[in-house]
Amino acid sequence: MTQTSSATVLKGKPVADKLLGELQAAIPGLASRAGRPPGLAAVLVGEDPASQVYVRLKEKKANELGIATFDHRLPAGTPQRDLEALIGKLNADPAVDGILVQLPLPEQIKEEQVLRRVALEKDVDVFHPENFGLLALKQGVLKPCTPAGVIEILKHYEIGISGKRVVMIGRSKIVGLPLALLLLHENATMTICHSRTRDIPAVAREADIVIAAMGKARFVTADMVREGAVVVDVGINRVGEKLVGDCDYEALLPKVSAITPVPGGVGPMTIAMLMVNTVRAFRLHAFPEEIL
Amino acid sequence: MTQTSSATVLKGKPVADKLLGELQAAIPGLASRAGRPPGLAAVLVGEDPASQVYVRLKEKKANELGIATFDHRLPAGTPQRDLEALIGKLNADPAVDGILVQLPLPEQIKEEQVLRRVALEKDVDVFHPENFGLLALKQGVLKPCTPAGVIEILKHYEIGISGKRVVMIGRSKIVGLPLALLLLHENATMTICHSRTRDIPAVAREADIVIAAMGKARFVTADMVREGAVVVDVGINRVGEKLVGDCDYEALLPKVSAITPVPGGVGPMTIAMLMVNTVRAFRLHAFPEEIL
Repeated sequence: MTQTSSATVLKGKPVADKLLGELQAAIPGLASRAGRPPGLAAVLVGEDPASQVYVRLKEKKANELGIATFDHRLPAGTPQRDLEALIGKLNADPAVDGILVQLPLPEQIKEEQVLRRVALEKDVDVFHPENFGLLALKQGVLKPCTPAGVIEILKHYEIGISGKRVVMIGRSKIVGLPLALLLLHENATMTICHSRTRDIPAVAREADIVIAAMGKARFVTADMVREGAVVVDVGINRVGEKLVGDCDYEALLPKVSAITPVPGGVGPMTIAMLMVNTVRAFRLHAFPEEIL
Repeated sequence: MTQTSSATVLKGKPVADKLLGELQAAIPGLASRAGRPPGLAAVLVGEDPASQVYVRLKEKKANELGIATFDHRLPAGTPQRDLEALIGKLNADPAVDGILVQLPLPEQIKEEQVLRRVALEKDVDVFHPENFGLLALKQGVLKPCTPAGVIEILKHYEIGISGKRVVMIGRSKIVGLPLALLLLHENATMTICHSRTRDIPAVAREADIVIAAMGKARFVTADMVREGAVVVDVGINRVGEKLVGDCDYEALLPKVSAITPVPGGVGPMTIAMLMVNTVRAFRLHAFPEEIL
């Protein structure tokens, strides 16, 4: 079958650029009213090369927008109490609006305990369990970055969510579960699949929108989606020299109505949403009397 | 078609009685070691007759088991600060292990703010957003009463959950959503339907287990479930003089393999799980060094 694909390629960059442009336009006025710029503290423990790259990218983007960054690098052997003490100081620092603790943390650190130390209103990654609960209960003011980025992409490309059958493959704490909750709040009829699901292809074929977020290279194949479905690929896997998603993009393209590429799909949204959260936290911090 | 039903009637009372019997056997020894009995404080604001009945039933059951109860009745016009001050006192009271704030609260009270005042470790109803977040993240030590009661019923009657397709109809904060999360943790392939779902019957027919929790009398009819499915009815609706569930029990009985009746199904589990949570909170409070 030769067929010219009419699928919409759901690129993240235009969506991210639009959001970042809005922030860039708003920040000088906000900073001048507040008498200070928004501030983002990044905490990196150890020397993981990928983590170093991520932190650098986040700080660079922040600085481009006029967000001040506070860079804290701790040695890999840092004890729990020192890391928690640093977070305590950042919680109390009036120049800091957002705190990001780059994961993964070294083995000796109890990650859950660290994430619970971050002040709720500075938790721009939305990793604190109370913020997760508020998210689940639809009461949160900050939304987790990658999941919120997926919602932004769907809205930008005018892909309706309400009443749609959405199948999430994956249930991680950082993507699958919080994104399923956000989609449920957008009135999706929400199904969550995972490693213990008996027949993922059959379930995925019921979906109007399939979200792949289980971290297996090219797991979602053309036979697993309905003709005309929308596919969102949140996976990033290294295969040899190449970065590939959780979906077999080339095979899916002729069958679907829209699909996010990897790279260039959901990826650019994560940093953009971190910037959105930082500016939101700044506004709540600097102008608490204003309703956002 | 005349057919003798072979459906298992999933009665809650034997399950509740078993759990309550275990508590009753364990409490004297625990109380003697702790030098005090477990303590449950009940806070009731206003004179809602149904709420008065619920609180009385909970206190009666607690007392039968050897749990001390502390009864706090406040007038309907109680201001927010007085209610929060009382909760603050109960949080600090070493004789109190569990605090239940009977809902609904009067109009002038900000319910969310009150529920966030309850100490995490005394939140036996699991209404605090941080406990909700911990539940969602599978890190909670207390589980919400009615949802946990449903899991207990399924386990008691040896109805497997792992890998099953479970369809939840309803997404309330007290039942639908937390129960969906617990079922997901039990490795169900979980679908959540609600008022904006396009074709609830078609979705429900995919399920091995259907959970009805939307509060509409006899909403789930025989054509909405697959032959041999399991049906759990969490609804309680008053129709004239009668209490009926969200399911058309008589019509479903010949078609399903198992079904909870209303009343007598999930109902008895809620108070039983509140007692389980109170004793669990007591143990964590009195013997913090013991791993539960």
